[in-house]
Amino acid sequence: MSIVMSVNAGSSSLKFQVFKMPEEEVLAQGNVERIGLNDSIFGMKANGEKIEEILDIKDHAVAVKKLMEALIEHKVVNSLEDIKAIGHRVVHGGEYFSHSVPVDADVEAKVEELCALAPLHNPAALVGYRSFRDALPECKHTFVFDTAFHQSMPEENYIFPLPYEYYTNDKVRRYGAHGTSHEYLTKRLAELQGKTQEEMNIITCHLGNGASITAVKNGKSYKTSMGFTPLGGIMMGTRCGDIDPAIVPFLENKYGYTPDEMDTIMNKKSGMLGVSGISSDGRDIEAAVKEGNPRAILTQNVYVNRIVEVVSGYYGLMGGADAIVFAGGIGENDCAMRQRICDGLSAFGVVVKPEDNDGVRGVEKLLSSPESKMQVWLLPTNEELVIARDAYKDLMANA
Amino acid sequence: MSIVMSVNAGSSSLKFQVFKMPEEEVLAQGNVERIGLNDSIFGMKANGEKIEEILDIKDHAVAVKKLMEALIEHKVVNSLEDIKAIGHRVVHGGEYFSHSVPVDADVEAKVEELCALAPLHNPAALVGYRSFRDALPECKHTFVFDTAFHQSMPEENYIFPLPYEYYTNDKVRRYGAHGTSHEYLTKRLAELQGKTQEEMNIITCHLGNGASITAVKNGKSYKTSMGFTPLGGIMMGTRCGDIDPAIVPFLENKYGYTPDEMDTIMNKKSGMLGVSGISSDGRDIEAAVKEGNPRAILTQNVYVNRIVEVVSGYYGLMGGADAIVFAGGIGENDCAMRQRICDGLSAFGVVVKPEDNDGVRGVEKLLSSPESKMQVWLLPTNEELVIARDAYKDLMANA
Repeated sequence: MSIVMSVNAGSSSLKFQVFKMPEEEVLAQGNVERIGLNDSIFGMKANGEKIEEILDIKDHAVAVKKLMEALIEHKVVNSLEDIKAIGHRVVHGGEYFSHSVPVDADVEAKVEELCALAPLHNPAALVGYRSFRDALPECKHTFVFDTAFHQSMPEENYIFPLPYEYYTNDKVRRYGAHGTSHEYLTKRLAELQGKTQEEMNIITCHLGNGASITAVKNGKSYKTSMGFTPLGGIMMGTRCGDIDPAIVPFLENKYGYTPDEMDTIMNKKSGMLGVSGISSDGRDIEAAVKEGNPRAILTQNVYVNRIVEVVSGYYGLMGGADAIVFAGGIGENDCAMRQRICDGLSAFGVVVKPEDNDGVRGVEKLLSSPESKMQVWLLPTNEELVIARDAYKDLMANA
Repeated sequence: MSIVMSVNAGSSSLKFQVFKMPEEEVLAQGNVERIGLNDSIFGMKANGEKIEEILDIKDHAVAVKKLMEALIEHKVVNSLEDIKAIGHRVVHGGEYFSHSVPVDADVEAKVEELCALAPLHNPAALVGYRSFRDALPECKHTFVFDTAFHQSMPEENYIFPLPYEYYTNDKVRRYGAHGTSHEYLTKRLAELQGKTQEEMNIITCHLGNGASITAVKNGKSYKTSMGFTPLGGIMMGTRCGDIDPAIVPFLENKYGYTPDEMDTIMNKKSGMLGVSGISSDGRDIEAAVKEGNPRAILTQNVYVNRIVEVVSGYYGLMGGADAIVFAGGIGENDCAMRQRICDGLSAFGVVVKPEDNDGVRGVEKLLSSPESKMQVWLLPTNEELVIARDAYKDLMANA
């Protein structure tokens, strides 16, 4: 028995889960929020208990110290030496990492270098990693990259039609994201269907506040909707996804926006929030639709059509697909949205009956009817488990 | 018998065709180039003769005067009064114009207003129109808009997932382009198939140096790939098409590009030229592919995959399609590219045999085999004829 943690460090947050491996039992999970601000929040669920404390946590090192004390206090672990391995989520692995890796000085330097491509995310992952390394000097650390699964994309599917020098000099290309989720869904569906990963020709839809769709061909990422950054692809809660890029200089010229202001508009004020003017949350939109709000109706229609178009595009690009998988907050819980997307895919013989879909939330289920030409699955994703598994695998390989 | 002209005025050019209507016989065609520069070129083909003169043409008014003299000199018309109507291509009709209209003061004012959305194109069309109006005071004038055919798109297919205020205040939405071409192809295929326009559920691919794809549902534009501007959509000769828009602020920040510089990079230095580093012309790329140039091979692969993805996306979005139509310089003449696109659509049961496609250029032909689940047509487009027809229709309506 080994204790393994999965950690997702943001600039002011630290999400964690503590697993007993190889049993994959979750011993504790929680989040430290508002790190570096007043009234930070330490939250944890363990042993059927829910703990929440408001206190000042000035940095990630203090957050880790607090977390370690809490794990002992609440008897999740007997001593810190019990924690054998930690998997750290890293957003950007660039072209260096096509799978998870044990952390060493070279790996750390490469993730540092990639901060240029993910300036909001990679630095936070490094701060998180270093805090745990200092607190737990004997523990093994593994970096698990959001981009790794997509490194299998062929060049024609990751090169943007821009001057090629921006790729060679500046590394501008499609990297994608949510890789651990798309990989998990692929492997899980293979398991459920009794197939190998290589036999998977499917389209995985990770629809959360951030959202991406992946064409999985022969078990590998063949194309994915997120691009150079997680702004690309389909419409999301607050992000616009791919658009005619001439709109950017047009609005910059018209309003005098700086590049950073324009980036913020597209990342934080667009998507469902931007079109509806109501909320970035699909539940709020749905409520407004029920009241007949035309902008909310429009928002859902744009959202559904973008997804139908991308799924259809991948179907053709892959030369056909056997199944569609829904996951993520919207994919797992928004039954009405799922129904509308599936109805929009009727050209491919997709049949999902409302009685097989309505009210189905957060469970593994085949939603499509036997006569459906593509299977449609709901599979709750579990990125934390993938991260813990990868860390445990490295631990065992080094044992 | 009436003489009708179609005119396409650019900022330094004036393309024209002279038709005998309703016979649709081309009496003359030509181009005035380098207007406002030294060594302007007046070129015309008429009565089997090819005329080219180098002379200084300081503005569009002088170009029109020269053109009128040449039409009389070469006996295309007996007198200027013979020219009864002129159709003027106007790039941007905004939301005002869903079909061609006779020009009056109100129409002129609206096209003037729309210069904000097409600053390179609409002003040139107005200059061209005014030059002809002054030269031929009795002639009837009709504006034919590149955007008009796409005004039938439903709102969910033209709204970008940006803050909605950019639509209401700044008219930022999808307008599309090449409307006269997509409309011509739709009507022509209906004619060839003995169907009504309303029965057309097809995907029209206008692939030239500029390129766009349209989902035509029940005979109307349902979605088209060009966006707010003709930069949007698929990869083109020098344009990138839709991309992760976060790339724009990233490059602006990194290189200090102004919005206009970034716009120029995306419009003039991207696409086939940008990826290949060789040329924006598909023929040059093809030649380099034959020499095994890896960047040229990559360019074609990116190009084909983008088209396959968009056509597939529209197939799904429309709920299926009966036919695909190829037109434009590449669509009509690049047999190898056409073959690769059709091969890429095998998931839809598209069958185009090389022996039915190779060497077929610039003619109307059903390319797909009888067993193909979608028909594939090559139809040379004719925007000039649509413009002349619309002008003639207005002339007859006013007669």
